[in-house]
Amino acid sequence: MTQVVGILGGMGPAAGADFVRIFVDACAQHMRAQGQPVRDQAFPEHWLAQVPVPDRSGALEATGAGAHQPLEPMLQALGRLAALGSRAVAIACNTAHAWHATLQERFPQVELLHVAREVASHLAGQGVREVALMATEGTYRVRLYEQALSDAGLVCHLPVAEERTLLMRGIYEGVKAGDLVLAEQCFADVAQRLVARHGPVALIMGCTEVPLGLQGSTAVAGMRLVDPARVLASALAVRAYGPGGRRIS
Amino acid sequence: MTQVVGILGGMGPAAGADFVRIFVDACAQHMRAQGQPVRDQAFPEHWLAQVPVPDRSGALEATGAGAHQPLEPMLQALGRLAALGSRAVAIACNTAHAWHATLQERFPQVELLHVAREVASHLAGQGVREVALMATEGTYRVRLYEQALSDAGLVCHLPVAEERTLLMRGIYEGVKAGDLVLAEQCFADVAQRLVARHGPVALIMGCTEVPLGLQGSTAVAGMRLVDPARVLASALAVRAYGPGGRRIS
Repeated sequence: MTQVVGILGGMGPAAGADFVRIFVDACAQHMRAQGQPVRDQAFPEHWLAQVPVPDRSGALEATGAGAHQPLEPMLQALGRLAALGSRAVAIACNTAHAWHATLQERFPQVELLHVAREVASHLAGQGVREVALMATEGTYRVRLYEQALSDAGLVCHLPVAEERTLLMRGIYEGVKAGDLVLAEQCFADVAQRLVARHGPVALIMGCTEVPLGLQGSTAVAGMRLVDPARVLASALAVRAYGPGGRRIS
Repeated sequence: MTQVVGILGGMGPAAGADFVRIFVDACAQHMRAQGQPVRDQAFPEHWLAQVPVPDRSGALEATGAGAHQPLEPMLQALGRLAALGSRAVAIACNTAHAWHATLQERFPQVELLHVAREVASHLAGQGVREVALMATEGTYRVRLYEQALSDAGLVCHLPVAEERTLLMRGIYEGVKAGDLVLAEQCFADVAQRLVARHGPVALIMGCTEVPLGLQGSTAVAGMRLVDPARVLASALAVRAYGPGGRRIS
């Protein structure tokens, strides 16, 4: 007996679509690990909401009411995912987790997974001690990963200002605008600088657009890239197949 | 102003996820064609329902009540997509279109796109006159494409019994079971036989699992492969950006 689960996407839409692909993969892997045959009907019911949400990093920079703009559409979509029967929901956007606590508080009947806590727990479980974080300005601003990683005992290195600008350029002028060549250049450049400075640490691709831009890139071959979407999708599959889910926070 | 649209998936789940990716691509193309910048917030709200649905080809072979088994979960999911505000819905499964008329009748407020009619109209518009069809036994049984293609003035060649068996093997033991090597062998074999018999006709990959199995295959290089999911996703994007949608049937 599987549970219905939901995915809150649209931030951006390509990343939301990719998250479903990764989640379906994670479900198939789960079935194989359990020795069950993989059949269409053995996948859990799941719903993807791709709704327009005002830019998260922009809102986190804004003062006053602006910071709340992304919350309304996310609350509405999460409410609908809950009404569809979702027992657990994953948000396919790292920066959007700045509103995680408020969203979770409003829908206590749904387990809202937290990407940074899932990643921190996953890496700590693998014995990783030191990482560098590629993310948006909004994600750095709310210290989303720093907090979760520190709680799990991991050291987190951050890019310098110039590298952050490059990341934002790769995300907005690259992936979100459909220029994947520019995206790869920006992301690979930052990855190489981080490894040059901190050694062969694990690199967290802490924005869903980064893996889309680095897909198939040879410039980062040999680096240890961590895709939080994979970790989050596996966690969601565990909830979907589990006997009522489990809380990790 | 965009319209909310829905995608009825889960048949199989990998194909449903892939359909969202193709739809998001189609939306970005639509924006570029209109000279609009591609931004997250410019994508239309869309919902993907991935629900377990009993096997469609199996149900179409069964006599009596068995034939209705896939209808219930599809009706329920379509009703929910309608309740979420979807003005148009695409079904990410060719064989499931055997129930298209019943589904459309029950939800007249939603425009339920028809994959074979979209493909037939698209190919006729491109001046194509002759095709061969790779599909499931269920899709052949209800003459889904033959009817729509004939209405549009196209000649449709069908695989022989042995080739149909190979297609079903590639779909069920291949893609649906996660064995993509077997899937490619089966599909490529049938494609080569069809081209050897009928010449360089357009090959309709009339089951959503076929493109997943033939992705990146060199065995079919140079053949004219038609992916109905791309045609259907473009049609859905037109509805999402259109001033209320348009009916083609």
